Amino acid sequence: MPEQISTVSSTALRSFIAACFQATGMPEADATTAADLMTKADLIGQDGHGVFRLPMYIRRIRAGGLNVNARFRRVQERSATALIDGDNGLGHLVMHHATELAMEKAEKTGIAWVGARHSNHAGPASLYAMMPLKKDMIGLYIAVGSANHLPPWGGTEMLLSTNPIAVAIPAMNRPPIVLDMATTVAAYGKVKTAAQRGQQMPEGWMIDRNGDPLTDPARAAEGFLLPIGGPKGYGLSLIFGILAGTLNGAAFGRDVIDFNADATSVTNTGHLILALDVKAFADPAEFRHGIDKVWEEMKSSPLLPGVKEIRLPGERLQRVLAERSDTGIPISAPLRAQLAGVASDLGVDPL
Amino acid sequence: MPEQISTVSSTALRSFIAACFQATGMPEADATTAADLMTKADLIGQDGHGVFRLPMYIRRIRAGGLNVNARFRRVQERSATALIDGDNGLGHLVMHHATELAMEKAEKTGIAWVGARHSNHAGPASLYAMMPLKKDMIGLYIAVGSANHLPPWGGTEMLLSTNPIAVAIPAMNRPPIVLDMATTVAAYGKVKTAAQRGQQMPEGWMIDRNGDPLTDPARAAEGFLLPIGGPKGYGLSLIFGILAGTLNGAAFGRDVIDFNADATSVTNTGHLILALDVKAFADPAEFRHGIDKVWEEMKSSPLLPGVKEIRLPGERLQRVLAERSDTGIPISAPLRAQLAGVASDLGVDPL
Repeated sequence: MPEQISTVSSTALRSFIAACFQATGMPEADATTAADLMTKADLIGQDGHGVFRLPMYIRRIRAGGLNVNARFRRVQERSATALIDGDNGLGHLVMHHATELAMEKAEKTGIAWVGARHSNHAGPASLYAMMPLKKDMIGLYIAVGSANHLPPWGGTEMLLSTNPIAVAIPAMNRPPIVLDMATTVAAYGKVKTAAQRGQQMPEGWMIDRNGDPLTDPARAAEGFLLPIGGPKGYGLSLIFGILAGTLNGAAFGRDVIDFNADATSVTNTGHLILALDVKAFADPAEFRHGIDKVWEEMKSSPLLPGVKEIRLPGERLQRVLAERSDTGIPISAPLRAQLAGVASDLGVDPL
Repeated sequence: MPEQISTVSSTALRSFIAACFQATGMPEADATTAADLMTKADLIGQDGHGVFRLPMYIRRIRAGGLNVNARFRRVQERSATALIDGDNGLGHLVMHHATELAMEKAEKTGIAWVGARHSNHAGPASLYAMMPLKKDMIGLYIAVGSANHLPPWGGTEMLLSTNPIAVAIPAMNRPPIVLDMATTVAAYGKVKTAAQRGQQMPEGWMIDRNGDPLTDPARAAEGFLLPIGGPKGYGLSLIFGILAGTLNGAAFGRDVIDFNADATSVTNTGHLILALDVKAFADPAEFRHGIDKVWEEMKSSPLLPGVKEIRLPGERLQRVLAERSDTGIPISAPLRAQLAGVASDLGVDPL
């Protein structure tokens, strides 16, 4: 039976999400900002990180696990750095605030690094890395993932998360280069999708507690995700966790709360955003042309047999953004039903 | 026949390298700094990046491809950023200068990012990432590799290098965490070592122009290195190349000179160093204890069958440093012969 998919315009989705957040008591301006970012996640094709997460956010808010009236506080500040306490607010709002601050600082100092603690899940990493693009800045975002899915290399206790990184770099006539990746071969969402579809996973995504390949996604709970490049990906996950977690006084390692399994404990999620002003290094137009040249060069490489084209990171994102801005955002029937339940609970008009 | 290995004290090695550089006309202070960094590379076990490279550096100097009287210039500067022109000097000197400047700036602003162009090969990435540790700072170093060894994902033209990253994070009673990694599964040096020893490579290191696994290192010229995590490692190599190369006006992509094959062309090597002051985020002692806790936690994970212990990035480095500080640095007979040749050419006392 094919999955039922209907589409919704970004305007309608944005209004719906904002109405839901407002119904929980979130101030209108914050509800609008959050709705805007979550809709953007869907517009750029990050289906697992947009409105798909709304039911969980609402559940956490109603369970008292997320503060809709969060007041952000600068715990530490220097001219090019800050540490924000997110007061257990929605991650999107914390990181939107942190990124605005980083851009404001980088305008003066050339670079800024803003960390956050007592935050929550903030959607896709690329949302924040891309914000500085409009100021001719490069953005870099790192987060401690919201559940642990892999052990240190050689171990069996899941002490690390997929700790993602996103970097966005402006181009001139080409789309920006936007890398958005987990430090594991597959994100956990891909395992869930394979399970839903009854498909096997390729070797290399997961291993079991004996170190053998695990290819049946129904057995995912018996194993762990594998980091990219083995010990290298373990090292990246560890370093990113320290920079986004430990350094900010946020959770890392055994302290990480699985936010899907536990809706009430304070997650103390940590993230960081770095904004780097291209103008502090180069003429922005010249640099952007240089990035176009990188595009042309990579695209011009001869291809391996069976490969249709070289892609650059962020290329698919831009294509999906253009398509969905035009034709709307696809919503599966089960998600639409879930969202109808949320609407009914909150007393807002359904999508 | 077992390889002949003799050892040399770090003091003797340092003096020898400094004497060689001075004999080429390099000022004494610079020769000392360079010798110090190259010896440190050997002390921490980066055998492929220490004195092993001296013959090549000397060859390039004598061929006119490297400027021993380089004068570094700040092409751009803001309070937390700078762009250094290395005047085609030795990479070690350029990056030593850049890292000192980054630390000085970060002391005031909390973070600094210093890029460099018109530099050259600078030895192992960890050398520079570790410099800020003594100031309770975190160091992050990225470079454009000195020869292209991989195509963009799906292609066959080698437009990218192994573009390495190193990050160093201070601990209290444990060694610092030091990640130093190429964005490829194997560094090219490991392929060369396998070839020398007549060993096959495991699948996953290289593919040939048909996309098939290449396991015979004698055929290395027919194939390419594979990036970690496939398209993810390609993305990292691309982003690192742009940040350390394009942004600094340094070589990237087709412009990269293979410094082993060509001793005269200006390489215009690009690097970057980021220094992040822990004090701008946390009490340094508390943070360092937090890193000790990360060590304990990772070490305490139960193990996969056949695994003896969990290792942290930088653990081997510290062990080798302690051993070699005590018993000296191993030098193979062929390398010793090469160094004797260099000494004789330059009229300095042999090692």
